[in-house]
Amino acid sequence: MNIKNFLNPESVAIIGASNDRKKLGWQILNNLISGGFNGKIYPINLNDAQILGKKAYKSIELIKKKIDLAIIIIPAVHVADEVEKSAKIGIKNYIIISAGFGEIGDVGKKRENEIINLSNKYKLNILGPNCLGLINSNNNFNATFAKSKIKKGNIAFISQSGAIASAALDWSQDKSIGFSNFVSLGNEAILNQNDFFEYFIDDKDSKLIIAYLEKIEDGQKFMNNVSRLSKNKLVAILKGGKTIEGGQASLSHTGSLAGSAIAVKTGFKRAGVIELENLEEMFNLMILYQKNIILNNNNIFIISNAGGVLVNTTDLISSKKLNLGTLSDNTVKSLKDKLPFISNIYNPLDIIGDADAERYKIAIEIFLKDKKVTNLLILLTPQSSTEIDKTAEVISNLSNKYKNKNIFTIFIGGESLNKANKILQFNETPNFSYPEQLINVLEKIISRNFKPREYKYKKIEKISNKKNEVLDYLESFKLISKYKIPIIDTFKIEKEEDFNKFKYPIVIKKVGKQINHKIDSNAIFLDVKNREEGIKIFNDYIVNKNNSYLVAQPKINNDLELILGFKRDDSFGPIIMAGFGGTYTEIFNDICTEVDDINEERALNLLKDLKIFPILNGVRSKSIYDIKKITNILVKIGKIARENKNIQELDINPLIINENEIIAVDIRIII
Amino acid sequence: MNIKNFLNPESVAIIGASNDRKKLGWQILNNLISGGFNGKIYPINLNDAQILGKKAYKSIELIKKKIDLAIIIIPAVHVADEVEKSAKIGIKNYIIISAGFGEIGDVGKKRENEIINLSNKYKLNILGPNCLGLINSNNNFNATFAKSKIKKGNIAFISQSGAIASAALDWSQDKSIGFSNFVSLGNEAILNQNDFFEYFIDDKDSKLIIAYLEKIEDGQKFMNNVSRLSKNKLVAILKGGKTIEGGQASLSHTGSLAGSAIAVKTGFKRAGVIELENLEEMFNLMILYQKNIILNNNNIFIISNAGGVLVNTTDLISSKKLNLGTLSDNTVKSLKDKLPFISNIYNPLDIIGDADAERYKIAIEIFLKDKKVTNLLILLTPQSSTEIDKTAEVISNLSNKYKNKNIFTIFIGGESLNKANKILQFNETPNFSYPEQLINVLEKIISRNFKPREYKYKKIEKISNKKNEVLDYLESFKLISKYKIPIIDTFKIEKEEDFNKFKYPIVIKKVGKQINHKIDSNAIFLDVKNREEGIKIFNDYIVNKNNSYLVAQPKINNDLELILGFKRDDSFGPIIMAGFGGTYTEIFNDICTEVDDINEERALNLLKDLKIFPILNGVRSKSIYDIKKITNILVKIGKIARENKNIQELDINPLIINENEIIAVDIRIII
Repeated sequence: MNIKNFLNPESVAIIGASNDRKKLGWQILNNLISGGFNGKIYPINLNDAQILGKKAYKSIELIKKKIDLAIIIIPAVHVADEVEKSAKIGIKNYIIISAGFGEIGDVGKKRENEIINLSNKYKLNILGPNCLGLINSNNNFNATFAKSKIKKGNIAFISQSGAIASAALDWSQDKSIGFSNFVSLGNEAILNQNDFFEYFIDDKDSKLIIAYLEKIEDGQKFMNNVSRLSKNKLVAILKGGKTIEGGQASLSHTGSLAGSAIAVKTGFKRAGVIELENLEEMFNLMILYQKNIILNNNNIFIISNAGGVLVNTTDLISSKKLNLGTLSDNTVKSLKDKLPFISNIYNPLDIIGDADAERYKIAIEIFLKDKKVTNLLILLTPQSSTEIDKTAEVISNLSNKYKNKNIFTIFIGGESLNKANKILQFNETPNFSYPEQLINVLEKIISRNFKPREYKYKKIEKISNKKNEVLDYLESFKLISKYKIPIIDTFKIEKEEDFNKFKYPIVIKKVGKQINHKIDSNAIFLDVKNREEGIKIFNDYIVNKNNSYLVAQPKINNDLELILGFKRDDSFGPIIMAGFGGTYTEIFNDICTEVDDINEERALNLLKDLKIFPILNGVRSKSIYDIKKITNILVKIGKIARENKNIQELDINPLIINENEIIAVDIRIII
Repeated sequence: MNIKNFLNPESVAIIGASNDRKKLGWQILNNLISGGFNGKIYPINLNDAQILGKKAYKSIELIKKKIDLAIIIIPAVHVADEVEKSAKIGIKNYIIISAGFGEIGDVGKKRENEIINLSNKYKLNILGPNCLGLINSNNNFNATFAKSKIKKGNIAFISQSGAIASAALDWSQDKSIGFSNFVSLGNEAILNQNDFFEYFIDDKDSKLIIAYLEKIEDGQKFMNNVSRLSKNKLVAILKGGKTIEGGQASLSHTGSLAGSAIAVKTGFKRAGVIELENLEEMFNLMILYQKNIILNNNNIFIISNAGGVLVNTTDLISSKKLNLGTLSDNTVKSLKDKLPFISNIYNPLDIIGDADAERYKIAIEIFLKDKKVTNLLILLTPQSSTEIDKTAEVISNLSNKYKNKNIFTIFIGGESLNKANKILQFNETPNFSYPEQLINVLEKIISRNFKPREYKYKKIEKISNKKNEVLDYLESFKLISKYKIPIIDTFKIEKEEDFNKFKYPIVIKKVGKQINHKIDSNAIFLDVKNREEGIKIFNDYIVNKNNSYLVAQPKINNDLELILGFKRDDSFGPIIMAGFGGTYTEIFNDICTEVDDINEERALNLLKDLKIFPILNGVRSKSIYDIKKITNILVKIGKIARENKNIQELDINPLIINENEIIAVDIRIII
């Protein structure tokens, strides 16, 4: 859906405008006017002839001018009528602020459906209902009830939660963080997250896209839009409802299910999304990106008047995928010349507790002249000779002079920092209260899946004939064997005489539709040494068959067991996975995942993400296994997933790896 | 060392007092006076006859009165002279603020040694040098240069870093956090962390002890003091220099080595210490403990006007060792009666975005009347009908009414919260900016090693004859065998004929002083099937002996491999460890540790902390191994460590576990 027109109206009607300053109808109108919106504004209400200096109308039909967008802030029961009236006179775009729809249960859902029907009938773009409005800084369009002026900036913010949107808005005004766009999605009856992600692809003002989402509407569309979006921009999402309990809480307040956590995680990775852990990270990322930061290496340089904080920050950097950069020899020499009383000149640099603003200035400038220094972190705690405000000014000046360098500050303390914090904020220097706030988000950015390939959208067909049944064991092997996945010889045992033909030792398994965890149900005999042992098992078994049968497999040498497979997600499609198999699968949970368009390269990357990869690759001088064969099997699993829409879930566990073979030894397919 | 007198002087001299408000000598004197210190105060300086209304003296010798403590703030070069003069007239206690000692290198170290010699000669208690002073609220003794009055409180704070101490002091004044004691340790020339830990054991005003430490002076004394201290109080420590790089940074600014990270971690656990991850956690724990919180269960109850934040907080709680409590039926009924418009009444409770102060009041009071609710978390984001300040007042009033309940708040936003934050702060309600700030510290407290047994101090003898050599292989087996640790039959192969006596298959290992990682150096043959294979290996080997010899062991069935052993630390003593062994040791790093006073119970707890414990204990219906045998071996390893002071390091890897035996198959001892 193209929402460019929606976001750039030239004339706006406010249905439910008010002269009462306490009402949203006043606040939104006031923000529209004071935000500097250049288009026409038509307030509509039943009581007043004029609102905030604008002529007001009793009804939308009385305006008789072209209206691009209507903002609706009236009780829920009247909303559908107003939409229909407006649609009939040709208004195509709507922001419905009013609550009382899907989020309150059945009555509200009925109201929401009326709106959806109107939208389909008249081809309307509708944001909401139950939202806080939106801001598009590009045309000074502020249709929210933010309490003061919103700065223009790099950041596009979208949120499914009104509460988080309002907290972010309030916080951003305090921190002087600017937005290109700010969108409260509300119930997403018509316009949803994906429409905005698509719009931001070409929106030159938006460099960082931050989203709070509890539900991903359409995983395929999401991956398609966001993989294109994150090619040139940073996309960071906080997903609410990741745990069962959180999902339950989300369900109860949005009326929508959170979706499979692992599918969402995989889809985020595929689309190049930075997955945020929590609200604090979300806010800290906005602090970092208030200027358009370009991070092209992971080398951090530090100057500090606080030894202890320096030690902590160094600990933190060393435990992350960041690095302490090395100063050029010239830089070290200059520092030694200018700061002879400091005994240890290296990065990180402790300029000692009695450093004044001048000493900060000398050190910072020498660092910044060094080509290797692109990311400079300046630490300060207020000590007896610290010139806090003056140091903040020194930093601001130097950061204006060296515009191509990234300068971050961490000033730790209380009230004595207030003025300095304002100075740094005014200069848009990313300034944090604790080292971990910066380091955590820096690492997230640097270690993200950079510039993903575009994900091709495929409509997911809802499978109507889900049986939730285990496919027959031998059938399952036959199926993967058709795709040339190597499988172990597996014989169905039907009579005592069958035990004559095996070469011992063998493994005997009892298989059937109910048997999921074979070790649980005494359904596996790992070391059957001879015919007699086999026959004993067979005779015990026939007493208690329960719709199952026995199979025999040769016992093979087992260096390492993997689990490979996929699980189909209704929104994201098949999620391919590989991990440490056998008994250890659940203990170490060393499993990585990918989406269905897996290829050899991505399969290898997936394996490389496993903790056990060094073993696959040959720990110490131990022999190296045929990794290419494993990646090949993963690609084939992707193919099986695409070509067999009836398969819900497939697990090969274990795939046994030894020096001579890589072979599927057990399998479970659910259709 | 008993420092009660040191901390409670009745008369104080300030050597280096000043009339210049910019100088520390003025600031400290001013704080002493304005802090309400009741004792005598004698300023000493060369220029002025009176300072801050007090008669000043030109020299300490002119005072001619009993002086309990001298504070010294003069250039480093003069400090030793002043200490000697003062010692001669009988002053026993000193706070040396002056810098320019051990921390600046050799010149300073010499000065510091003079101080240490004087201390030994005259039996002096000295805090510092190079410190920021101390506060003992109990006698209104504030000998720091804090900028405003320090509140009395529950928290004892000690820091090896002056920078972190000054940041904490500044921050605490902003947040109105009170201290019982506040100690900047400086270089710890005489008094150190352990003296203060010991003092806090009986100090009734200190309920939470917070420390920032880079170096643990004496691990044995530390464990003894802190294990006693943490029986009745909470001890939380942030350790700086945990990584190699951080240790390096610490070394360069304190001149002291950080010590073995794993030993510190183990000692902290043994002593019941909460190990803090970072500065932010340290500060957040102080916010939580400004009132004396008693946490006796992990059930959290939540009321929120912000659905999205509720979802996030629930995700967070579910991923930690915390639990969402269940409301009593009566509570649910009352809530349904009073808040009929809320469709989902359960914990966590979403009272919806339009909640005003009255709705908060109703919900909170019903929750607090429920006996099951002891930990109540109240979330708020500023939305259009939120009564922020009034809600803060409601919370403050109810928290005064229900004093035996723990009430925490998280108000998320910006400037609109300023007044509410002050209201909550005034009432000492622990109030945080983000859910993760509270939840992280709550979990740390609840999952700490509660009420440790007292650790018995043993003086660690420095080993002078460290050889750093590998003990002979067969000798090593013999040694552990003396302690009745089961070992595998191991034969030294000396001639071809030896191969006649083995029962194949066997394992052949090449052993010697240089061979650490046997798999690395092609020194292990895991499956020698017959005599001929063995002889071939023997013949290849004799060409290239290199001070080594061959041994043969029977090949045994291997369900699981453990690594058990110990490593001796110069400060904490032997650190016993157990973990997932064999190839996977380094991959999963699933290793847990204990100190040398390990017993059966603690050994079992150690095993239970391993990720692989479920396998040891029998995953699914798989047979259970003899865990008692393993704990027994761990206790014996403790004994070996105590009785063989020459052993630096001992690794049994693997200890092979199968259904029939638990047996040491490989060993390495370093002497």
